[in-house]
Amino acid sequence: MVKFWMTGLTAATFTPFHADGSLNLAIVPAVVDHLIADGVKGLYVCGSTGEGVSLAREERMAVAEAHINASKGRIPVIIQVGHTSLAEAKLLAAHAQRAGANAISATPPTYFKPQNTACLIDCLAEVISGAPDTPFYYYHIPPMTGVNIDMEAFLQGCKERLPSMVGVKFSSSAVPEMQTGVMFDGGRYNFLFGSDEMLFSGLVGGAQGAVGSTYNLAAPLYNRIIAAFNRGDFAEAQAMQGKAVAMVNAVVRYNAMPALKAMMGMLGLEMGPTRLP
Amino acid sequence: MVKFWMTGLTAATFTPFHADGSLNLAIVPAVVDHLIADGVKGLYVCGSTGEGVSLAREERMAVAEAHINASKGRIPVIIQVGHTSLAEAKLLAAHAQRAGANAISATPPTYFKPQNTACLIDCLAEVISGAPDTPFYYYHIPPMTGVNIDMEAFLQGCKERLPSMVGVKFSSSAVPEMQTGVMFDGGRYNFLFGSDEMLFSGLVGGAQGAVGSTYNLAAPLYNRIIAAFNRGDFAEAQAMQGKAVAMVNAVVRYNAMPALKAMMGMLGLEMGPTRLP
Amino acid sequence: MVKFWMTGLTAATFTPFHADGSLNLAIVPAVVDHLIADGVKGLYVCGSTGEGVSLAREERMAVAEAHINASKGRIPVIIQVGHTSLAEAKLLAAHAQRAGANAISATPPTYFKPQNTACLIDCLAEVISGAPDTPFYYYHIPPMTGVNIDMEAFLQGCKERLPSMVGVKFSSSAVPEMQTGVMFDGGRYNFLFGSDEMLFSGLVGGAQGAVGSTYNLAAPLYNRIIAAFNRGDFAEAQAMQGKAVAMVNAVVRYNAMPALKAMMGMLGLEMGPTRLP
Amino acid sequence: MVKFWMTGLTAATFTPFHADGSLNLAIVPAVVDHLIADGVKGLYVCGSTGEGVSLAREERMAVAEAHINASKGRIPVIIQVGHTSLAEAKLLAAHAQRAGANAISATPPTYFKPQNTACLIDCLAEVISGAPDTPFYYYHIPPMTGVNIDMEAFLQGCKERLPSMVGVKFSSSAVPEMQTGVMFDGGRYNFLFGSDEMLFSGLVGGAQGAVGSTYNLAAPLYNRIIAAFNRGDFAEAQAMQGKAVAMVNAVVRYNAMPALKAMMGMLGLEMGPTRLP
Repeated sequence: MVKFWMTGLTAATFTPFHADGSLNLAIVPAVVDHLIADGVKGLYVCGSTGEGVSLAREERMAVAEAHINASKGRIPVIIQVGHTSLAEAKLLAAHAQRAGANAISATPPTYFKPQNTACLIDCLAEVISGAPDTPFYYYHIPPMTGVNIDMEAFLQGCKERLPSMVGVKFSSSAVPEMQTGVMFDGGRYNFLFGSDEMLFSGLVGGAQGAVGSTYNLAAPLYNRIIAAFNRGDFAEAQAMQGKAVAMVNAVVRYNAMPALKAMMGMLGLEMGPTRLP
Repeated sequence: MVKFWMTGLTAATFTPFHADGSLNLAIVPAVVDHLIADGVKGLYVCGSTGEGVSLAREERMAVAEAHINASKGRIPVIIQVGHTSLAEAKLLAAHAQRAGANAISATPPTYFKPQNTACLIDCLAEVISGAPDTPFYYYHIPPMTGVNIDMEAFLQGCKERLPSMVGVKFSSSAVPEMQTGVMFDGGRYNFLFGSDEMLFSGLVGGAQGAVGSTYNLAAPLYNRIIAAFNRGDFAEAQAMQGKAVAMVNAVVRYNAMPALKAMMGMLGLEMGPTRLP
Repeated sequence: MVKFWMTGLTAATFTPFHADGSLNLAIVPAVVDHLIADGVKGLYVCGSTGEGVSLAREERMAVAEAHINASKGRIPVIIQVGHTSLAEAKLLAAHAQRAGANAISATPPTYFKPQNTACLIDCLAEVISGAPDTPFYYYHIPPMTGVNIDMEAFLQGCKERLPSMVGVKFSSSAVPEMQTGVMFDGGRYNFLFGSDEMLFSGLVGGAQGAVGSTYNLAAPLYNRIIAAFNRGDFAEAQAMQGKAVAMVNAVVRYNAMPALKAMMGMLGLEMGPTRLP
Repeated sequence: MVKFWMTGLTAATFTPFHADGSLNLAIVPAVVDHLIADGVKGLYVCGSTGEGVSLAREERMAVAEAHINASKGRIPVIIQVGHTSLAEAKLLAAHAQRAGANAISATPPTYFKPQNTACLIDCLAEVISGAPDTPFYYYHIPPMTGVNIDMEAFLQGCKERLPSMVGVKFSSSAVPEMQTGVMFDGGRYNFLFGSDEMLFSGLVGGAQGAVGSTYNLAAPLYNRIIAAFNRGDFAEAQAMQGKAVAMVNAVVRYNAMPALKAMMGMLGLEMGPTRLP
């Protein structure tokens, strides 16, 4: 069993592009320095925020390397390798391991979808066979993948079949399902909550860490929520969470991803356009 | 603007049937006494747990009267009057007012569904026109109704058009949407959270009260969550919520509604079978 | 086994309202005369087009009686009695039988939904127990009800459990599923296709009749499709179907139901507004 | 405007694997000879049946080349290049053009999905920019992609923006939507119907050709449907379609893709296992 455990805020990093849509990786070190200075404790690269599945294979690899290199071991870097093709996902996993990723993560395939838990675990086993020595986080995001699970049956299967599995990036508002997972087998698995706008609710449900896009921009605000939660100051945590809700509502009212990238630009970190679609 | 505000646990009451499927209202006073003794602070009658939409019109009225009469003013009683026909819903609302309900509540119509917020509010205006002097809670339960809202636009419309509206029964795991509603207009509306298995997450999102089916059975456990939350004891609240999650998982593994009714029977309160389907 | 078989076009009748939203049944005889003169061979009353579930109980009964009386036995009248409450549906079925309906029809309950075929058939058995001597058509309209079936398993269960079942109003574009039903048990069941804008495709899939809203307005056009189909003139049938598609596209571009009611008004048959929502 | 028009049956080819899951392309020539001998008029390669999105990039290219080479110009070959990454799709499109494909086809991206028609057309423009001289068929398969369109608005946009677009692979049962497309601009676009089990319904809706998986196995049966349709013999066409429906129902009762591949094996054409998931 691989040992790996993350806490605090992990930024789901944006992929920076030039105006012509090509990668702009020269800016990555500055972004990573900003995030570390802001109190971010990990990087989640090529996820939904990073537009991973919209990149070509070599682009995904280059983005992964840029972030691993920029971190210089200061904070752990998770590379998301999910793909409709398990052969591609395995290949990306192997690359991430070679490049020095601290962990990998993957959605299930999403065009053809696993129809049951056993098939899902078979799929994940195929992915992690490319990086058997690298800790793995399942990327649970049913609103995007359409893949739902029975958490206990899933984790039981993972325990038996996926030795490098260490946790779940849990991108759903179903806190009781997460809490079921947190309680599984005496707390075997590390849960990273994926909904910034209800971080406080995720913390009370037992999440040990959190991954999100707005942690690129407002980590201090969210760290105040965590600190208030840790000292039992619910009024402060709720008030700060209320500010986060208002911020996210404002962003969503515009087109969320371009708005977030534009806000990065206001910090002097020009992320460029987003990819279609 | 009608003044009405509920806090604490409101039980979404079961409708008791004889073995032949007919109403068994003689047991209602014993159930209500049990709930009050257990620390329940309100009754929500003929909702999803109460199988309201599965009852004939006269049955709905009889169930409403039985609970209002059994409460004898000790705790407030909310009657759910939602129907595919607004004419029927209005008629049920008028009856609830005559019968002495403290409040009414309604889902939108769910066969034909309102296609936008303006239409939804038109529908609700029609319902409450039957009981203009009775406080109204919108019953928001998108997993059952398929009707989603933009919370701010919805409440703005309610404020302008629905003078007797006092709050929302919020049966969704989208806590940020609820928190948006809680913060609307300086806290104008009363939010009753509808997901027992994540009550703690709902409280931190700002819910002032809660409505649920397992409050019929385990109100003391949930009152410990509320008390722990109120004094900032997050560890205790999380541990108690964990017990609730485990209990709900066990119930859902069986057929949830029959299992819950059977557990009431173990308390000596025989609720009988459930209606088809 | 009840004997009953319909062919040709059945109009899914509109429910006429006064401007104030109350029933305007005085116009029903004129509408029925128009339909018969236009070549319509049956009436389907209080279905989706007739806004059945938006009416109060007594309104549904009055609309049913008005159409049965106006037909005077010239063409068969099917009364749709589906309801979220099986008790109400049974009561409406009993009324339809007393009022002289030639057949009844029902959706399954749609708030709580049958979770499997056995439960669906239990629900239908409850409905038809109110009108055991009246032919029954299952109203299959999954886009509205969310209830899907395995056609063969469903019909096998119906054959065993529902003696008065004679057919299916099939409102889905899944023609192969209908053709499976048409072929079941040597053609035991009568299929009435519910998609006007692809009537020709339904006929080639084996539908013996059709129920639809635009048959109120344009029965001669659709009868030309049927006639062309019957004589093997595919070019003519396709061309006429193309006209129907263009007409339906135009109507849908506006709000479909109000547009269709307005077109009836142009024929001198004022149907009034539609009910919310 | 590129000129290209297909009629008759196009087989959505299977991708053959060895037992260990690697490509078994040596068998492709025998498969293609079989298909041509059986009356198939085109090949659709790396679509859903071909598990295109489950293959690695080089595998997709190798499968494309194998079929183009095996056809030797006897029947046209369409290569499906849809991908979550438009960069990958464009790269696959360019490869297909270089390899001598007669046409390309693509789904929209399906993890992030185009949210409106304009964005969809922007996405398709990006794909076809890799193969500007190769005819393009939009692959419309909403049950898999979740991407729906307004057919007229979509084709109007295609006409203005996508000069190499020649038609649509229409994998939906919504025949009126297809007929709307067939009638667009005097019949500008070539529609290939994608639902084998309702081919006859698609023909009457105006489809000029058809793409499907069971055309690998039973092309003669389907060609009898086309011939009967062409001579106006509806009884024969309906009877043959009934046989096809029964066959597809039987296959679906088992796991459809493995069952179909096993049936190919019975013809002496061993297609091997399917890929996860």
